[in-house]
Amino acid sequence: MKIEVINIGSELIDGTRVNRNLSCIAEKLKGLDCEITRGIIVGDDEKEILEVLNDSFRRVKMIIITGGLGPTLDDVTKKAITKFFNRRMVVDNNNQALVPQASRILPNPKGTAPGLILEEKDKMLVALPGVPEELNYLLEEALIPYLKQKVRLSSMARRTFKIYGLTEVELSEKIRLILKRKGLRFSILPRQIEIALKIEAGGNEAVNLIQGAEEEIKRNLGDTIYGMEEETLEEVVGLLLSMEKKKISVAESCTAGLISHRLTNVAGSSQYFEGGVIVYSNKGKMDLLGLDEKLLKEQGAVSEETARAMAVGVKNLTGVDLGLAVTGIAGPGGEMTDKPIGLTFIALAKSKKTVVQKFQFQGERELIKLKASQAALNMVRLSLIKK
Amino acid sequence: MKIEVINIGSELIDGTRVNRNLSCIAEKLKGLDCEITRGIIVGDDEKEILEVLNDSFRRVKMIIITGGLGPTLDDVTKKAITKFFNRRMVVDNNNQALVPQASRILPNPKGTAPGLILEEKDKMLVALPGVPEELNYLLEEALIPYLKQKVRLSSMARRTFKIYGLTEVELSEKIRLILKRKGLRFSILPRQIEIALKIEAGGNEAVNLIQGAEEEIKRNLGDTIYGMEEETLEEVVGLLLSMEKKKISVAESCTAGLISHRLTNVAGSSQYFEGGVIVYSNKGKMDLLGLDEKLLKEQGAVSEETARAMAVGVKNLTGVDLGLAVTGIAGPGGEMTDKPIGLTFIALAKSKKTVVQKFQFQGERELIKLKASQAALNMVRLSLIKK
Repeated sequence: MKIEVINIGSELIDGTRVNRNLSCIAEKLKGLDCEITRGIIVGDDEKEILEVLNDSFRRVKMIIITGGLGPTLDDVTKKAITKFFNRRMVVDNNNQALVPQASRILPNPKGTAPGLILEEKDKMLVALPGVPEELNYLLEEALIPYLKQKVRLSSMARRTFKIYGLTEVELSEKIRLILKRKGLRFSILPRQIEIALKIEAGGNEAVNLIQGAEEEIKRNLGDTIYGMEEETLEEVVGLLLSMEKKKISVAESCTAGLISHRLTNVAGSSQYFEGGVIVYSNKGKMDLLGLDEKLLKEQGAVSEETARAMAVGVKNLTGVDLGLAVTGIAGPGGEMTDKPIGLTFIALAKSKKTVVQKFQFQGERELIKLKASQAALNMVRLSLIKK
Repeated sequence: MKIEVINIGSELIDGTRVNRNLSCIAEKLKGLDCEITRGIIVGDDEKEILEVLNDSFRRVKMIIITGGLGPTLDDVTKKAITKFFNRRMVVDNNNQALVPQASRILPNPKGTAPGLILEEKDKMLVALPGVPEELNYLLEEALIPYLKQKVRLSSMARRTFKIYGLTEVELSEKIRLILKRKGLRFSILPRQIEIALKIEAGGNEAVNLIQGAEEEIKRNLGDTIYGMEEETLEEVVGLLLSMEKKKISVAESCTAGLISHRLTNVAGSSQYFEGGVIVYSNKGKMDLLGLDEKLLKEQGAVSEETARAMAVGVKNLTGVDLGLAVTGIAGPGGEMTDKPIGLTFIALAKSKKTVVQKFQFQGERELIKLKASQAALNMVRLSLIKK
């Protein structure tokens, strides 16, 4: 079944508020055999709402509309839908609200305006409040249970792959033939520091189709897939460190705390994260990590040798198994003729050897920091799976 | 001028991603004499996009469309608009991209796909990438300057106040009478760790009205206003440190790098940020900052005394003017009978004395870290303006 979602609210189209209600509804409907084909956002304007309802019902049989159900002057949705279905307003004593005649009332203990379901011939309109907390409650407690009786449970199967280390084009090339397979839908979602690949199929063969594609995608992409579904890279690194019973410390120059922050966003990270130092100046690198002044002068703060000495230094200072270090130029200042903005060295000191990699990141200051943190975490991941 | 905004992306209607692009565009268009009357979201489906374009151009003369401009298989927007305007694709050598013939190219150094403007008779279509960073860039650097030549500037005046340390209700109480003033529009936007208060007025008296209101709001809210417009707390703290020619170092336990990360997101922060340590374990607090084992055992890692010793320790270790330290319980583990999740001590060591404040934050792990970092930065700010 196809559904269109209409979100009402002038604050949603004038830049005051981001509309989260569409994705909230889509999230909750997963698992039901229905699909949102369009989202529409209009202000609190009765004429506009009527026009949108007319158009949408020409394309689909079910509409979910949110917002504008309250008692204040600018809440006009209820008026518009009453008019659309040619009904009268009547008082519903249980909910102390004016509602369109012959509508099914969804009581809303979290707020003042109840939700409404209006059905006529093959048309179904669901009106819900726009306040996220109330919307959530009514979706879970009233609408989904009601729809489950009406709509078949979906036989959709889906998988999400989290990928690092390939460009969008490289990724498409590697799995082009798999994605062309009949019945398979996919989306490639590039994010700042990674790509999410989603595949999806419906029908009787859905599970087999997805399983087959998953195996092949994993074979083709290898260890550029760092995780599945909603996993983050810091979670995966944390899991690997836990499994290996290894502790890590971090010495950060240009990322300046971001790697430690990300690692400790994971609950329970104190089991494997010992701590670290942020050494922004040469003085800090010498005083805290024992780097040699001569090394810093000759090679520079952003160099392979400095990264190596920082990683070994923080490993020894904190007495852990792994020392991770990052030094680079986040910009916009600090550029040198032989050292452009974005140049970054990342080192990982292990029990027997220390590896260093050189990167050249593009973007603004914050993005370079983020990319450097991702590359550093990925170096730790690869070293733990490739022992 | 009326505008409709079309956001393309299956991830926007299947619950994978919240669509922020509509409100981003609306925000940037403020100050121009135009109005977004409808937002429409559809998946990466050429037929759907064509249908939406047809419908929208029946209602308005200008459309902004985002997403689906990239080079991969699922990016179909460019195909759809080329078809809609009956044009051919041609190679644009400057931008190494296929573009519809006779379109104005908006170069996109942040990504691969350039933006496009297509005009025909009285119709204008602007196509922009869906990646927020690229969209932002092209709006500011290309579209808005272009539109300013086409569309009248509106005579709106507006101000945004960034506020920390008041609840939404406290804020409303303090400025209730000012906000009721005739001709003044306002919005109070609570964010996780601060509140943005926006005021706005139009017409001939707009500037006077806003100036008068601004003065009174500043008088009523005092130093709970930390900045104006888009300023962040870390920028304000950086500015104050620069002006006072003071250097700061940070010792972080529960925030684990977040404060250092935020301070160093500001370009030029190496002038006043020396570095810091992340001491997640008692061992780290003793080894790196010289804390006394007896103190840690008797008072606990999360205590006023530990915060104080950490702040003094990091100040001495790095030889700076100000030592900032945070220790707390971010959860979900680590709770003790007398020390609930969210309990946090923040200390600031200055040349002559060290101040410590106790906080009880609510929320999940990441939110507690964020709130603690905000409170810590605000302590630095207040100490620098109240010498």
